[in-house]
Amino acid sequence: MRIGIVGGGQLARMLALAGIPLGMRFTFLDPAADAGAAALGRHIVGAYDDPAALDALADASDVVTYEFENVPADGMQRLLDRVPVYPHPRALAASRDRASEKQLFRDLAIPVPPYVLVDAETDLRRAVAELGLPAVLKTRTLGYDGKGQAVLRTADDVAAAWERLGGVPLILESFVTFTREISMVAARGRDGATAFYPVSENVHRDGILRISRCRREDPAATTAQEYAARLLAHLDYVGVLALELFDTPQGLYANEMAPRVHNSGHWTIEGACTSQFENHVRAVCGLPLGDTAPLGCTAMLNCIGKLPDIDAVLKHADVHVHDYDKQPRAGRKVGHITVRSDAASALEDLVQAITQVLPEN
Amino acid sequence: MRIGIVGGGQLARMLALAGIPLGMRFTFLDPAADAGAAALGRHIVGAYDDPAALDALADASDVVTYEFENVPADGMQRLLDRVPVYPHPRALAASRDRASEKQLFRDLAIPVPPYVLVDAETDLRRAVAELGLPAVLKTRTLGYDGKGQAVLRTADDVAAAWERLGGVPLILESFVTFTREISMVAARGRDGATAFYPVSENVHRDGILRISRCRREDPAATTAQEYAARLLAHLDYVGVLALELFDTPQGLYANEMAPRVHNSGHWTIEGACTSQFENHVRAVCGLPLGDTAPLGCTAMLNCIGKLPDIDAVLKHADVHVHDYDKQPRAGRKVGHITVRSDAASALEDLVQAITQVLPEN
Repeated sequence: MRIGIVGGGQLARMLALAGIPLGMRFTFLDPAADAGAAALGRHIVGAYDDPAALDALADASDVVTYEFENVPADGMQRLLDRVPVYPHPRALAASRDRASEKQLFRDLAIPVPPYVLVDAETDLRRAVAELGLPAVLKTRTLGYDGKGQAVLRTADDVAAAWERLGGVPLILESFVTFTREISMVAARGRDGATAFYPVSENVHRDGILRISRCRREDPAATTAQEYAARLLAHLDYVGVLALELFDTPQGLYANEMAPRVHNSGHWTIEGACTSQFENHVRAVCGLPLGDTAPLGCTAMLNCIGKLPDIDAVLKHADVHVHDYDKQPRAGRKVGHITVRSDAASALEDLVQAITQVLPEN
Repeated sequence: MRIGIVGGGQLARMLALAGIPLGMRFTFLDPAADAGAAALGRHIVGAYDDPAALDALADASDVVTYEFENVPADGMQRLLDRVPVYPHPRALAASRDRASEKQLFRDLAIPVPPYVLVDAETDLRRAVAELGLPAVLKTRTLGYDGKGQAVLRTADDVAAAWERLGGVPLILESFVTFTREISMVAARGRDGATAFYPVSENVHRDGILRISRCRREDPAATTAQEYAARLLAHLDYVGVLALELFDTPQGLYANEMAPRVHNSGHWTIEGACTSQFENHVRAVCGLPLGDTAPLGCTAMLNCIGKLPDIDAVLKHADVHVHDYDKQPRAGRKVGHITVRSDAASALEDLVQAITQVLPEN
């Protein structure tokens, strides 16, 4: 099976590493000449809206998937006219704009924090009056890793936030006082079969995911699965989907969804019977989904900015390094490290040990 | 780190799949234009004794290793003059000829079955008289997967075996009545640290490995480790080495060694904390060795001749397909399947289920 991937970064790289043992061959469309996945297949260097590049990707592929959400709709339609695309671009459309995403959650009775759409500074003042502070102002499209967001704590923050983010469609959300952030990574096959990973419990800093821990028996698992199942069924989804949730004393609130493999599921490479990457390629190729059961206790630590000294990491037992082959740059995800242990307490010791050797960034 | 591999078959492919996440880049020297590893790095199409091809491999590599034993000594020396080669070619030299290999075992007090070297038909008759029948006549070099071997059961078999194999250096070995065949896959780092996997219990048919089972707590483990440790230390070995042994009522007898990753260790990809492939690349790059502890109960089934229907395999939970991207051909290893389970009894059910869908070959 020949798989085309829109995007050639670390997610495409890990999809290929999972699919190659299954006999799949990969072609990546990515404008960056040094795309990290390029070594694992054919690399079409081109823009995501370049008709010739999109046609070349379609011609090289039995099925196309994508590693990031911000693919132009016209480009997706051009691919769809030529080749099956999974997940169907309707999932992209739903998640591309925070307004439509929140409406979808509401339609499916998945709780979301109170929010108000904001298109002008007067809207913003009215929204602040309605929701109260603190609140979070976000661009409705193109945000990632905390980019395109501003936290409003006092009335004085309003003008500055408008100054920084205004001029594009925005959304103001009530600031949710959560006890923790979790995600549910789920998969659905072409035949409608579904599979759910254990809950990931996620720690962010400066808007960037730092640590995800697999929570084998989590009190929120059943509800989080139910919410993800509604999304998968409603979207007639094929592939892996991640749903990020805030856990609060009032219950779970959906934050956002990602119609793709997700950073908070990277621990599944070593920490589950079948990784999220393998299940995504299995799903888009029409193969049966694999077992999502956890293997031991696992956590994943992102390497932000640059990689740590690999010797200092690998001297620990059952520690696994994933180098994305990217140039170091402040704030950039350049790799991740998975740690695993039979016991939860030993795992935390290992998390601490690896945290010590990670560069600050 | 840039790694060169002499050979571009499935072992090179799996070494690359293990090394790429660690940030390593690979170059393969292989005369076959359709070498299965080629998609995972740069492929130098050339003969193993072609000076220009060997120099190109050395120039492209910080360290060179190999995936098969029958590399001409001159070629190895040419590489050694230009770049570090691990394991050191002295290990190749020791294992290339069954006579020197058996002598090495004897020197290290590793028991071997009685044997006699045979260079002429008169030698063979004398050897049969000395060892008795049954016995196994083998070519001293270039044998693999049961090729270059003949079992002598009666005096009538002697002439036919000579007819088929004579003319090259041979060895006659007493036929060992073993209860089972096992192997010990072991690794040694550049710093001399060693690591040993659990015993693999191996089932051959027609001279070809069919099934390897990881034996987590095996009564032969300590002795097998001790023998492997002697070889690693004596050869100042760097990388993964496999030692095949016959388990008999009289104890373990060494059959042969392989100075490389080994088919009987393929289960380690999913069945051990660190696979034999990752430990080999870690070792040759001077990185710390990884944990060799098993994960659950695991067995590996070879796909001989052609692959089974992938859907029929993947519908079972915790089953993993490894397609070597090779053209089907009778007797050829074209892939393997790893099955894993928490319990040994469930594992055997899974082995039986997969055996049912494997094509006969």
